[in-house]
Amino acid sequence: MPIVAFRIDPWASEDLKDYEKLFSYFGMRPFDEVVTQLKSFGELPLPIRRGAVVGHRDFEMVLDCLKSGSRFTILTGLMPSGKMHFGHKMLIDQVIYYQGLGAEIFLAIADVEAYGVRKLSREDVINYALNEYVANYLALGLNAKGLHIYFQSNYRKEYYRLIQLFARKVTMAELTAIYGEDLEPAKIVSVLTQAADILHPELPHFGGFKTVLVPVGLDQDPHLRLTRDIADRFSNELGLTRPAATYHKFLCGLTGGKMSSSKPESFIALTDPIDESVRKLMASLTGGRATAEEQRRLGGEPDKCPVFELNSLHLVKDDAHLRRIHEECRNGSMLCGECKLATAERLRKFLEDHQERLKTSIETAKTLVETPDF
Amino acid sequence: MPIVAFRIDPWASEDLKDYEKLFSYFGMRPFDEVVTQLKSFGELPLPIRRGAVVGHRDFEMVLDCLKSGSRFTILTGLMPSGKMHFGHKMLIDQVIYYQGLGAEIFLAIADVEAYGVRKLSREDVINYALNEYVANYLALGLNAKGLHIYFQSNYRKEYYRLIQLFARKVTMAELTAIYGEDLEPAKIVSVLTQAADILHPELPHFGGFKTVLVPVGLDQDPHLRLTRDIADRFSNELGLTRPAATYHKFLCGLTGGKMSSSKPESFIALTDPIDESVRKLMASLTGGRATAEEQRRLGGEPDKCPVFELNSLHLVKDDAHLRRIHEECRNGSMLCGECKLATAERLRKFLEDHQERLKTSIETAKTLVETPDF
Repeated sequence: MPIVAFRIDPWASEDLKDYEKLFSYFGMRPFDEVVTQLKSFGELPLPIRRGAVVGHRDFEMVLDCLKSGSRFTILTGLMPSGKMHFGHKMLIDQVIYYQGLGAEIFLAIADVEAYGVRKLSREDVINYALNEYVANYLALGLNAKGLHIYFQSNYRKEYYRLIQLFARKVTMAELTAIYGEDLEPAKIVSVLTQAADILHPELPHFGGFKTVLVPVGLDQDPHLRLTRDIADRFSNELGLTRPAATYHKFLCGLTGGKMSSSKPESFIALTDPIDESVRKLMASLTGGRATAEEQRRLGGEPDKCPVFELNSLHLVKDDAHLRRIHEECRNGSMLCGECKLATAERLRKFLEDHQERLKTSIETAKTLVETPDF
Repeated sequence: MPIVAFRIDPWASEDLKDYEKLFSYFGMRPFDEVVTQLKSFGELPLPIRRGAVVGHRDFEMVLDCLKSGSRFTILTGLMPSGKMHFGHKMLIDQVIYYQGLGAEIFLAIADVEAYGVRKLSREDVINYALNEYVANYLALGLNAKGLHIYFQSNYRKEYYRLIQLFARKVTMAELTAIYGEDLEPAKIVSVLTQAADILHPELPHFGGFKTVLVPVGLDQDPHLRLTRDIADRFSNELGLTRPAATYHKFLCGLTGGKMSSSKPESFIALTDPIDESVRKLMASLTGGRATAEEQRRLGGEPDKCPVFELNSLHLVKDDAHLRRIHEECRNGSMLCGECKLATAERLRKFLEDHQERLKTSIETAKTLVETPDF
């Protein structure tokens, strides 16, 4: 057990390479233990099939819903603070998958956090939310029908009431233990707001009780832990229950390290011009060796390669095809240049199709949600 | 100038005997300097006429509105955490007065603070709000017509958006400087909510801009200082301007010290049974001397007497009559027993009339405001 604190900063989006600590220190469970049962409900989406979803909490509740036909809902938040890239796509691919299994989707636009914590202007926040995130979500296949989508700053009073009530049963001591000492009022408000995002679909005012599942990146676990505690504290008063959660790894950045919105060369955005995207791909780090000769001899390292990861999690749906790419890399028969050219073709095709769909989905996005007027 | 901090705790409701420090340290102004001009707009209410309103900030803005016929509004909050007593009546008497001068009235039911900071149950909060405060306000003469009345937990999204936006431009450093170190999330949310209470009537969404005046007890000045600073920070973004404020002293408690909701013998509630009220009055401390002989010789001290104060601020409207009481006490010709009996008759008459009006106003109160359903 740890003596010193192992603290995750959900605002810094650290690369959680040692995420196994989340299992031993914080009670997260490996997703492996539930994935077999999930398979029986149909084809898994790439992030799950290719192992990017590594952890969960109480996913058994979702399996129970699937077995019994009980209602369940996905709550997902989007942070409209920049362009939407392939790292973000991993999340929405899961959401679309659960929607296909019958889940209702609640989509929270985290404009309060984008404005208050990340200090963006109100205009930029609305623009990113609709033209980047929501439009891309739709173009990727999210069904607009029955979608519950809202700006945190423009929602219903029962949702705001939850924030107010939650404040009573949360202490500064626990917030600083979870998030660190430098908690400003905007972060406190944002954290309580996220708890309301996650738990409000359980209220009768929002369509009646349903099991909530929150698929997130590993770095968001602090919010989930707090929210699950809050749910316990309001189980009698409001009938709330703990949400389930799944956790995915971060996508590798093209320049090494994490794919990060603040480093444009590290990611390919879904709205990037296609030639620009291909250029970034061709300049990407790979799992290749120092020389062609060495690579032919030793083979490449696909499991450390951002290009292979892009194929695995986004561009190559066929398992046999992906296995072949992996094998040809490992045995040195396909070098990085050749692989990148083939990947570039897949990327080009994907983005062409996607950006064609985007033309109409940008218009649809505007009609789905009322934007705050200040 | 002070070297050590002079800090007011708005949640402790201290007796601010040395309130003159508020003038020298915090820039509050004496109300004397504006009261003459206010007189020209008609008869002043007792709390102003009898000197209980001692300070102000920017009251000149209100005078300007009265002169030019511009709109102004009163924002007043009620804390539904117990019975409404004569100390609270001082505030609503001022509100009713300004309503008579043409002010729109915004009445915030501070259920978020009552629940989150004072830890009352949701049911008690709603009960106190309607059956104690709002019903008494109406029975005292507040005109329900055009009244904007709301529970903090059951209002409009633009109001909640203000809370979220304010959070961005408020720091923990300034909150702890104003309120002290032991700020829990419930207090932080409550403080931001109060700023939204005070400033939201300026927004176009709530009837368009109007000058806001907040009449409060002296201990509430920290909230006003913070809110005025917040208004400055959002003057460009939202067009907010500083609210004006007036400050009244606390009523003396019948048992000495401050009149306090947590000490039932210290106050007379407007819904107390009349015999019970008279009993409390007859048991009250006075400004009398140790013996009747001494009092005949030296005279009483009406300016230190809770019974005289009750007459002055609530029961005796006629100035000449009050002056006579004061004089007969000072010169020793009327002793406390006689004065109390006369006061008891006034109190009985007042409460009989008031509680008769209360029968209908309790019903009206329920129709004026939508109560939160959880």
